[in-house]
Amino acid sequence: MKCKICNGVAQIELRNHNIALCKNDFFNFFERRVSQTITRYKLFDKKDRILIAVSGGKDSLSLLYVLNKLGFNCSGLYIHLGIGEYSEMSLKKCEAFVSKYNLELNVFYVTRFFGCGIYEIAKKMKRNSCSICGIIKRYVMNRFGLEAGFNVLATGHNLDDESAQLFGSLISFDLVRLEKEKILLPGKEKALKKVKPFSLITEREIAAYCIMNGIDYIYEECPYSKGATSLVYKSALNLVEERSPGTKLRFLKGFLEKGHIFKKNEQSLEDESKYCSNCRYLTYRDMCNFCIIADRLSRKDEVRVNFLNYIEKL
Amino acid sequence: MKCKICNGVAQIELRNHNIALCKNDFFNFFERRVSQTITRYKLFDKKDRILIAVSGGKDSLSLLYVLNKLGFNCSGLYIHLGIGEYSEMSLKKCEAFVSKYNLELNVFYVTRFFGCGIYEIAKKMKRNSCSICGIIKRYVMNRFGLEAGFNVLATGHNLDDESAQLFGSLISFDLVRLEKEKILLPGKEKALKKVKPFSLITEREIAAYCIMNGIDYIYEECPYSKGATSLVYKSALNLVEERSPGTKLRFLKGFLEKGHIFKKNEQSLEDESKYCSNCRYLTYRDMCNFCIIADRLSRKDEVRVNFLNYIEKL
Repeated sequence: MKCKICNGVAQIELRNHNIALCKNDFFNFFERRVSQTITRYKLFDKKDRILIAVSGGKDSLSLLYVLNKLGFNCSGLYIHLGIGEYSEMSLKKCEAFVSKYNLELNVFYVTRFFGCGIYEIAKKMKRNSCSICGIIKRYVMNRFGLEAGFNVLATGHNLDDESAQLFGSLISFDLVRLEKEKILLPGKEKALKKVKPFSLITEREIAAYCIMNGIDYIYEECPYSKGATSLVYKSALNLVEERSPGTKLRFLKGFLEKGHIFKKNEQSLEDESKYCSNCRYLTYRDMCNFCIIADRLSRKDEVRVNFLNYIEKL
Repeated sequence: MKCKICNGVAQIELRNHNIALCKNDFFNFFERRVSQTITRYKLFDKKDRILIAVSGGKDSLSLLYVLNKLGFNCSGLYIHLGIGEYSEMSLKKCEAFVSKYNLELNVFYVTRFFGCGIYEIAKKMKRNSCSICGIIKRYVMNRFGLEAGFNVLATGHNLDDESAQLFGSLISFDLVRLEKEKILLPGKEKALKKVKPFSLITEREIAAYCIMNGIDYIYEECPYSKGATSLVYKSALNLVEERSPGTKLRFLKGFLEKGHIFKKNEQSLEDESKYCSNCRYLTYRDMCNFCIIADRLSRKDEVRVNFLNYIEKL
């Protein structure tokens, strides 16, 4: 197989783009597409301070790598979830990565703040781990980002994640969730602007980009993610992608182009938001979900007074 | 397993409804759901003359069976596609069925009208068989229905068909196709009202209903349908259904309830329709697709003058 650009030996075949590329041309192709996504959807520019949520996995580490390479001003935030060996290993991957590329990493330890890890918190709250984890991560990313002076939060969600999420929302005709599925969620008072620069890049392309760049990442998935419904949606879309390469890309692009038809309820959503009685951040109720957890674990005052002290800079 | 209604021995488990039923209670359940669909979506009533498109398969034969049993005024229309043994066998199933239940069957022979079968026509037109078949079937059903005094055309499309079709339209964000995906397409000048009373009933329920009622149908699929994209969409949805029984039903119901958000282009579609210069039936061009085929096969005048003579009543 020959590289479509330089005619050299191809290292990777991208069936969804109907091309094969050598290592260097794949890097160019990959970085140009990230760059085009950032420009086309006006995600951010060189003046912005970008906080990147890193987990130690391929998506987030390569996002930090590529945005840094493209010359953006960015730092990482790792949230240590207290999930035994999995959390230890993923923190080590992040540490090794930022030390190799001389980047900034901030770490929030769930166990130090709450006195126990995600699994125990979920048990105490009688909720499933994934929903508790989501609440904590979203809160910490947003609050730390705002208070530490960042103006954009970027996450490594890729095309496989985004198309599976979209499929799930469409299959249940969840119009409220469909409204929120954007490549850019604008910031507002007490809410950091959120962007997903990898929305149009597949998991496979990102893994290849990591491996070819020698970026060492954690292969294991979170032990609690097994059996997640999103994995079924991914498998279902993979069946269709296998048959018609490029389907996921067309699916998400179609949504980005025409998804405005789902925007009808926006007003009602906006109207509902108010400020948490404890921490003054956004909520739909009297107290935000993070403070409800903190309250149950007797850490309510700590949220108000001492939050930033739990972030360690490496 | 016990029947949820009468506590007798259950004959079928319906995971999507989370029930098991004996034969009699399954019949009641099935027929009540068809009846409710007809009422809820105002498909038709006892005063209507309903033409049912039958293929010899389980969906269409059981549709004719159940609508007749529920007391509706209905006749069958079989379109003989000239696909060798497959067409002969399916016609025989239809003939045996109507003779057993003393129902009316009308037959249109593609080969008599065009001088050859679907495969040869497709070859001459340089189109694929499925698209040619669709054009011919839609035209014959509509025109015969209108000219023979029917006011409703019913087809046996089931939940698996409809959810796969919907999935395909959503994945390509085909807003024009999404507009047309309705359980009821209202009639207008030169276009018969079209309905799909089995839209909320699964293929599996219909097969069970046929078998338990002793309805003999053709098991084979059309030899040209192999590899159709719709089969991939069905497999993808089956993966999700397997994991979360009832997904397809929720998916289609969600669309029927909230699908009006896709209706924006309706006006533009309506505007485009005009009348075929040869047969005076609806088209988006100067000549309708059926007459274009007839023209190529030198049967253009026959469409105008002699069409109804090609329908044989059994």
